[in-house]
Amino acid sequence: MLILGIDTALRTSGYGLIRVDGKRFEAMDCGVIKTPAKQPHSECLRRLHGGIEEIIMHFKPEVGAIEGGFFFKNAKTAMVLGMARGVVVAVLAKHQIPVYEYAPRKARKVVMGQGGADKEAIAAYMAGLLNLNVDDIPKDATDALALAICHSLMASTHGGTYLPDPV
Amino acid sequence: MLILGIDTALRTSGYGLIRVDGKRFEAMDCGVIKTPAKQPHSECLRRLHGGIEEIIMHFKPEVGAIEGGFFFKNAKTAMVLGMARGVVVAVLAKHQIPVYEYAPRKARKVVMGQGGADKEAIAAYMAGLLNLNVDDIPKDATDALALAICHSLMASTHGGTYLPDPV
Repeated sequence: MLILGIDTALRTSGYGLIRVDGKRFEAMDCGVIKTPAKQPHSECLRRLHGGIEEIIMHFKPEVGAIEGGFFFKNAKTAMVLGMARGVVVAVLAKHQIPVYEYAPRKARKVVMGQGGADKEAIAAYMAGLLNLNVDDIPKDATDALALAICHSLMASTHGGTYLPDPV
Repeated sequence: MLILGIDTALRTSGYGLIRVDGKRFEAMDCGVIKTPAKQPHSECLRRLHGGIEEIIMHFKPEVGAIEGGFFFKNAKTAMVLGMARGVVVAVLAKHQIPVYEYAPRKARKVVMGQGGADKEAIAAYMAGLLNLNVDDIPKDATDALALAICHSLMASTHGGTYLPDPV
């Protein structure tokens, strides 16, 4: 199974593709889709749309995993993040790829056994699990890899009994 | 000039296309993109994405006008509306169509001279201005036509001095 994890944000979204073979994980690709700070929202969303679609066309992932279950104090922040999320979900849906969402804390708990792990610890864990040199990989990308692995574990544990509904 | 107005929401988005020739407005098309209540978010966003892209390919509008400047009490509502907005902005940006946003009150004020007009009044005004039988047209679509006309007036008044920056 090929899983695309995406840590979505307006200006810098991380992505990570993993191939799962039984209990073995292989990182196929990971990176970030970035738009410089001064560019308008439309340009950020255009790049995110094009970038995710390119990854889908190239790797043909079977399932997507994104961050979800946020709590916001600020409605404006929620709206901006929603814009980026909407683009990612729409592009995946266009290509008939189901999308699952996991709260950040949940994903860390599933992957590492502890919900309180920070980004450094996630990166270090990904380094070990996937045999990567994470010093060269942005944290948004290692977060995205963790989302993909979270989904894989959710899907394989107890025959997927605990899988959430797709988005 | 051909302007596409879009009144964006997750399950029911209105759209309206107007052609502007000097001071004359002609409604080219209008309608709604709708997803039944039980469908998941991904299906709503897929339809919105496909629907807007189809309209763009068919009519080739030169500019888009969307609702903006909302105030939300609820971050979750903001996130959901943001998802729909993000999809619309991304598809327009993909086709190199600049998008302008207008607060609902502002749009009503520009078009009708009064920011407090309700949806019924907007529909009636559109009926007169565009010579339409609005009884057969959903209110989301007449709102979208009003957004397009708002942009046209903003662009033509004082040589566009008061135009906002595109999104």
